[in-house]
Amino acid sequence: MKRISVHRLPPEFAPETCRGADAVVIDALRATSTIVTALHHGCREVYPVLEVEEALGLKSRFTAGEVLLGGERHGFRITGFDLGNSPLEYTREKVAGKHLILTTTNGTRAMRQTGLAHRTLLLAFLNLEAVAARLQERPLDLHILCSGRNGERSLEDEVCAGMLIDLLTGKAAAAGGWALDEPARETLNLARTHQDDLIAMMHASPHGRFLAEHGFDADLTACAQLNRIPIVPELQNGTIRLI
Amino acid sequence: MKRISVHRLPPEFAPETCRGADAVVIDALRATSTIVTALHHGCREVYPVLEVEEALGLKSRFTAGEVLLGGERHGFRITGFDLGNSPLEYTREKVAGKHLILTTTNGTRAMRQTGLAHRTLLLAFLNLEAVAARLQERPLDLHILCSGRNGERSLEDEVCAGMLIDLLTGKAAAAGGWALDEPARETLNLARTHQDDLIAMMHASPHGRFLAEHGFDADLTACAQLNRIPIVPELQNGTIRLI
Repeated sequence: MKRISVHRLPPEFAPETCRGADAVVIDALRATSTIVTALHHGCREVYPVLEVEEALGLKSRFTAGEVLLGGERHGFRITGFDLGNSPLEYTREKVAGKHLILTTTNGTRAMRQTGLAHRTLLLAFLNLEAVAARLQERPLDLHILCSGRNGERSLEDEVCAGMLIDLLTGKAAAAGGWALDEPARETLNLARTHQDDLIAMMHASPHGRFLAEHGFDADLTACAQLNRIPIVPELQNGTIRLI
Repeated sequence: MKRISVHRLPPEFAPETCRGADAVVIDALRATSTIVTALHHGCREVYPVLEVEEALGLKSRFTAGEVLLGGERHGFRITGFDLGNSPLEYTREKVAGKHLILTTTNGTRAMRQTGLAHRTLLLAFLNLEAVAARLQERPLDLHILCSGRNGERSLEDEVCAGMLIDLLTGKAAAAGGWALDEPARETLNLARTHQDDLIAMMHASPHGRFLAEHGFDADLTACAQLNRIPIVPELQNGTIRLI
């Protein structure tokens, strides 16, 4: 029987934990939703980086016009960057054929902690069923990392984790099932409470309220679109691409 | 023209540096020599881990008899471990068909810093030509990490780096060549001074002297055997295997 573990606070996550297992990283508001949207719209690859200086250094290696800088600090676009962290900005017109260097406050940090995993998939509500289907093809132990926000737990990431677990454990019931750790069971319960009205859940979340109060109300709706984009981004050697 | 950079002290190495490039990790005395030897003798995979506790935790995931614990602290085998860090211990009889969990003081630390590289190859004097040939097939920018010893530079790692550069730049002369950074040029000079008597160089190195004084004299000779084992170990997702 394979195990599912949920990690609600990435700062407490030891990289050795996920060695040889599958890992899923969630930052539903907004980094993983933005990445899924960008790749769906033809962006070639996404490079998550921690610091603005690293983003600028990496940009200098590309031919001008082939690369975009995206990301946020305190929710807002970074001075001199091409794009912020709103999935609505990542239109086909802007991102098709481009490389994207992305730095965000929480999601890109979580993405640095799964280097020992067999593979790392990126999850948002947008691509929930696609990720579940991919994990189901050849199940390994699974570690789900919620990015949280500035060291605090994140309702929307935990609901997303729980909905993934619901899909996996439902489908696997006949195949012997999965063993869930305590945080996994809690997110599953949370998902059952909130999954019928994701937009209301987004507005109930502290991070969602912050975004709505700062002009990003439409992002909450965009990030709550369930299974709208059936793709599976994989992070490998610091590069995110479709597999 | 591709660039070769040498990093003589991994503690100063920023992981973002090697994004998208090839990386080579050297710990000639003794971790990479031991890994090359173990894989050559039929060891299935090597897992470099940082801490003894991690090694014990990882061991518990394997069936008894399928896995070996190897490594050193202060040069000596760790209490309760199956093997130390001497390549001479890693005979076919002991390691064939086994998984090896290895924790060493310097080499396994350096191996944690290249996660953003396109690929990470492990180098010792034992497999110098094989690694050079592999890098030459499709050259990318190259970062060579010398593991050093307890934060000090390591003569034998730098000589090994320089000999790799000598092989690469010799072969590539007709193909446009490589650009070397200043440490790369210095290791190349160091290699030309020492490459004709590697065993004497090993004995002149502070780490070599330490090992010789503590009963590991034979390891210096074993680790100085040039091109004896023509294999290329690759580190990917925390696992080292032959490619």
